Amino acid sequence: MLSVLGKTKAKVALLVALGVAIFLSSAGLIYAQDAGGAETLLGDANAPVNFTWTLMAGFLVFFMQAGFAFLGAGLIRAKNTVNYMTKSFMDFSIATLSFWAFGFALMFGGSALAAGLEEGNLWIGLSGFFLAGDAYDVGTAELWLFQMMFAGTAATIVAGAVAERMKINAYLAYSFIIGAIIYPLYGHQVWGGGWLSTLPFGVGAIDFAGSGVVHAVGGLVALAGAATVGPRIGKFNANGSANAMPGHNIGYVVAGTFILFFGWFGFNAGSTLAATELRISIIATNTLLAGAAGAVVALYFTIARTGKADIVMACNGALAGLVGITAPCAWVAPWAAVVIGGIAALVMLGSVKFVERVLKVDDVVGAVSVHGAGGLWGLLAVGIFADGTYGNYTTDAPLVTGLLYGGAEQFIAQLISVVVVTAWALGAGFLVFWVLKMTMGLRASREEEMEGLDMPEHGMEAYPAAR
Amino acid sequence: MLSVLGKTKAKVALLVALGVAIFLSSAGLIYAQDAGGAETLLGDANAPVNFTWTLMAGFLVFFMQAGFAFLGAGLIRAKNTVNYMTKSFMDFSIATLSFWAFGFALMFGGSALAAGLEEGNLWIGLSGFFLAGDAYDVGTAELWLFQMMFAGTAATIVAGAVAERMKINAYLAYSFIIGAIIYPLYGHQVWGGGWLSTLPFGVGAIDFAGSGVVHAVGGLVALAGAATVGPRIGKFNANGSANAMPGHNIGYVVAGTFILFFGWFGFNAGSTLAATELRISIIATNTLLAGAAGAVVALYFTIARTGKADIVMACNGALAGLVGITAPCAWVAPWAAVVIGGIAALVMLGSVKFVERVLKVDDVVGAVSVHGAGGLWGLLAVGIFADGTYGNYTTDAPLVTGLLYGGAEQFIAQLISVVVVTAWALGAGFLVFWVLKMTMGLRASREEEMEGLDMPEHGMEAYPAAR
Amino acid sequence: MLSVLGKTKAKVALLVALGVAIFLSSAGLIYAQDAGGAETLLGDANAPVNFTWTLMAGFLVFFMQAGFAFLGAGLIRAKNTVNYMTKSFMDFSIATLSFWAFGFALMFGGSALAAGLEEGNLWIGLSGFFLAGDAYDVGTAELWLFQMMFAGTAATIVAGAVAERMKINAYLAYSFIIGAIIYPLYGHQVWGGGWLSTLPFGVGAIDFAGSGVVHAVGGLVALAGAATVGPRIGKFNANGSANAMPGHNIGYVVAGTFILFFGWFGFNAGSTLAATELRISIIATNTLLAGAAGAVVALYFTIARTGKADIVMACNGALAGLVGITAPCAWVAPWAAVVIGGIAALVMLGSVKFVERVLKVDDVVGAVSVHGAGGLWGLLAVGIFADGTYGNYTTDAPLVTGLLYGGAEQFIAQLISVVVVTAWALGAGFLVFWVLKMTMGLRASREEEMEGLDMPEHGMEAYPAAR
Repeated sequence: MLSVLGKTKAKVALLVALGVAIFLSSAGLIYAQDAGGAETLLGDANAPVNFTWTLMAGFLVFFMQAGFAFLGAGLIRAKNTVNYMTKSFMDFSIATLSFWAFGFALMFGGSALAAGLEEGNLWIGLSGFFLAGDAYDVGTAELWLFQMMFAGTAATIVAGAVAERMKINAYLAYSFIIGAIIYPLYGHQVWGGGWLSTLPFGVGAIDFAGSGVVHAVGGLVALAGAATVGPRIGKFNANGSANAMPGHNIGYVVAGTFILFFGWFGFNAGSTLAATELRISIIATNTLLAGAAGAVVALYFTIARTGKADIVMACNGALAGLVGITAPCAWVAPWAAVVIGGIAALVMLGSVKFVERVLKVDDVVGAVSVHGAGGLWGLLAVGIFADGTYGNYTTDAPLVTGLLYGGAEQFIAQLISVVVVTAWALGAGFLVFWVLKMTMGLRASREEEMEGLDMPEHGMEAYPAAR
Repeated sequence: MLSVLGKTKAKVALLVALGVAIFLSSAGLIYAQDAGGAETLLGDANAPVNFTWTLMAGFLVFFMQAGFAFLGAGLIRAKNTVNYMTKSFMDFSIATLSFWAFGFALMFGGSALAAGLEEGNLWIGLSGFFLAGDAYDVGTAELWLFQMMFAGTAATIVAGAVAERMKINAYLAYSFIIGAIIYPLYGHQVWGGGWLSTLPFGVGAIDFAGSGVVHAVGGLVALAGAATVGPRIGKFNANGSANAMPGHNIGYVVAGTFILFFGWFGFNAGSTLAATELRISIIATNTLLAGAAGAVVALYFTIARTGKADIVMACNGALAGLVGITAPCAWVAPWAAVVIGGIAALVMLGSVKFVERVLKVDDVVGAVSVHGAGGLWGLLAVGIFADGTYGNYTTDAPLVTGLLYGGAEQFIAQLISVVVVTAWALGAGFLVFWVLKMTMGLRASREEEMEGLDMPEHGMEAYPAAR
Repeated sequence: MLSVLGKTKAKVALLVALGVAIFLSSAGLIYAQDAGGAETLLGDANAPVNFTWTLMAGFLVFFMQAGFAFLGAGLIRAKNTVNYMTKSFMDFSIATLSFWAFGFALMFGGSALAAGLEEGNLWIGLSGFFLAGDAYDVGTAELWLFQMMFAGTAATIVAGAVAERMKINAYLAYSFIIGAIIYPLYGHQVWGGGWLSTLPFGVGAIDFAGSGVVHAVGGLVALAGAATVGPRIGKFNANGSANAMPGHNIGYVVAGTFILFFGWFGFNAGSTLAATELRISIIATNTLLAGAAGAVVALYFTIARTGKADIVMACNGALAGLVGITAPCAWVAPWAAVVIGGIAALVMLGSVKFVERVLKVDDVVGAVSVHGAGGLWGLLAVGIFADGTYGNYTTDAPLVTGLLYGGAEQFIAQLISVVVVTAWALGAGFLVFWVLKMTMGLRASREEEMEGLDMPEHGMEAYPAAR
């Protein structure tokens, strides 16, 4: 107890000191640029509709947090519900602060996408800390809000994979780090003007709404986390075979999937950051079609295999379809969205078996397969199905063309991005969880795990005796 | 098991063959029109705000699926929760694919509302299949996305009425058919340029956001389905009297109603498809007032009758009010919305008795009364309360005037529409469910029904033993 | 039973008579101004984007009702779930009707913010009843819809504080009164052109999105209600110490908090009523940062105090942060939002102790501390942290400056507003609940309370025996 407090205090003190130092060096209380918005409005008559679109879409992405909370809670046992929901709620809150203080600057510094983001290089961003100084600007805040929701999504993907045995304080520490460092550094490569985006193949490595930047990063860090913390007691038998450990509320799983699907429209279509890009209607259409195709393929696949209509797999199929279409959503035709979504479901189903049977990793909710495998597939799908009708976030940019339409080069760029994100997310993920394991300790005690983490770590049960 | 698989395979093969044939004949991979959106933007400076409005509203309508899932799940017994939620989730996914492939073209072909929708006649649409060819266009995708959400709503209304005894594979087959054929054909009559919209009374039969097109169709097909599959074991006694069969979670009922209410703002106000129609504010206001009035009338009615504040009836009252205002929402004043919503609640309450006591049909959630009866009332309400302040989706069109303001003709058009939708939805509904009964079989075995459908059909329980 | 009916009938008759009289005197069926919207559009090319923004934000605020329903339901015992959810659902429905008929006119009459709102004075508004006459206008309906959602929020805040023992019919009567009178009268002072807004200090008393108008009013009326109805049986021991009475579903608490957080983006950023005020991006950013900071501070505070990660307190911390930033959200920098949110969590934690230990009031969900104490802190925070970068709802208005930036006068105006809202909400709250106690009776019988209110008042349980 005391050592926990001591560590917490030391950590907080260190962070506050670091924060104040960077804050003051970022101009701190002196603000600049256009904090009222009048100047920006004068310069761009379309700013109001683009702000409306981007902010509303960002709010929808925020709501996906509730979807993750429900989905994961449904798939775990009742005795860990408070623990899971605490992680799900707090990882977003903590990542919000770390992405505000550090992550956003490391990711978008140098991109010049908005005011106060001028400094940075091919490897890392170096301006925009704390939204202070020149970054106290309406355009920068708009970008931050939308991007923050994505950072939060990446963070929370991990919670499901490591559920039911990772200690809450270790998980909260991880949340800070993914928002501050792990997520932004690969993100800078693709969205912040970094090296991958400058590759001399096709239009460079691209990822419209984050199959790679958000989902593959989250899913692969989840793999590192689940592997490092080890399987739940009772998951694997001595001979290596796995036991099913059913969750406690299937209704929550469906509810969570609906909420995620709903938010995904903002996730994908909002990523234009502009309503003046009318391609948003095709993006939303592709998103819906891919999710539906993923659900249908996964459901009929399980019916064909087992004779049972497995709704959990159908939900994961829908989510895999959505993850898969996230990178290519803006560059493919509706028929291709159906194909991409259907294949994503099959990729997810194969990955679930692979993770459990080959890797022997206990991924409680299938996060590695839905987000990790689905995300890598999405990156590749850009290089296959992009049909040359749309450019990189605008019709004015060079059009994106994949293998099916003669664009082999784009596929190469995507392949390189797949390699980089896999290496980075696994490498950084294993490192962080190893360090946490060595310092704070990752895993609850055997007694706590058997009892469930809710009482030992939170002092309350999810469902106190009724009446 | 084998025969199920065989049938599934044959069905899938047939559909795929049909699909590919139509797809190729629709120009397939060759796209045209404005898939990037630059041209559309150039031609219409208001396109971004109208796209923003329509797409965001469509997303809200999507979220109503979660509302239906919660509402129905709360009103059924725990042992059928997985089954109900699977139907609720999959009917939308399947209807998405069938409306994309076939339904949208049958409904809007010939309407010329967007690119690629030129061919069609007074009875049926014949272009826009698969959003391929000329229909691969930002304007067409915008229309499709919004309309798809409506088709999905009609589909899922049926799930509640036939809950707790209809087999999952029969229900999934029905889902495909309502999205591909039943919903679009009446829809073409009203929104796709078909015969009813050309009636020489008033401005022709109209239905702003779908009291008839969506809710009456869904509610009356639900009546056909519930009647064909028969009542649940134990619902009716030998003497014909009915037993109450309480659901398992009242909180879900309230949550579902809130979500539906929330989505309904998009459903009604979004139906302008344009933010430049500022009438949207009055539409949203009317929607809120009618729903609130329905809730209050239903609650105080049950308090007066039984002394108990029946929240389930209050929720159904709110929903009936919302269904009732859906057709007239754009053409009436706020005071009339209150009256329409209040009457809708009374119509719903009367219909519940009628369906149970006279028709002896077991409608588990009251879908027939809320959506069917409420929807027909909504169509008539247009002909009574329309006050001549607004036209058909625009202020430039001839103004709509009902009985109270001297417009007897409009009432006649609405009456004809009521007759047509009733005949079509009941006729098509009974035919489809009869065919499914004769081929796949509609009803779970007595043993399965007694046990609950979750284990036999899905291999899982909604609430696996905790801990 | 009969006397309940008699009272209900008399009340309804009185209200209807009053309603019809005012309705007819407000021009009633004769409408005027711009009900179609064409004229408004002609006069303001930005009207569509501003309508889109305001209406969508209003819909988000509506959805907060579902958040309150879940949050409260999770914190009470299962035996009162139907009762709580009925209150949560019906207070909004009833407040909708009373705010439509009376409240809106009393609040915004004289503000001239839209058509039909010309009459009123420094103390009370006197036009806009029933949205009739000149108030049947697209601009007025837009304002009404957004404001109605706020009135409904204030109403429902009270439900949680008085849960588990207040009779449903007394609560419903209160709902009518807060929407018709209590909420609008202070609201007129701040947002309707009333006296407080004309104070000669700073720019007058201000409150961007309602820390005071909505939350402090709701939270302080809740205090009056909880004090008047008295504590639940078993809450306090003979020696005055309090017992913990855990709720029944922690997952609902987290879900409710997520939904409230989601809706809060509309609550705060939508309060510009205009997307042309690009400050909306900074408002949304501040909202997120304050909520996250509140959650983090409350969580680590409880970890430091008890060694347990108390998710209920973290949720209340997030909500307190959101309440606290609601007034200052438009006038402060991101770093200040973090500080304001963090302090709000501490204020809430202190208030919880104060209410329970000093006031000996049984506030079941902490509504008094989150909304009341948090709301008053928010009003003061404007006077401290406003940094002079933005005016009152527009960049053209005089800029708002707080203590930290040399603006002592604004702090005085805020302090006066704190005194007024406290006096008004407590005074009116105690009066209303005292009158209800003397007439209808406030409190369920001892037997009903012990059994739970669900069966006696509603004739149903929340979770009927499964299967």
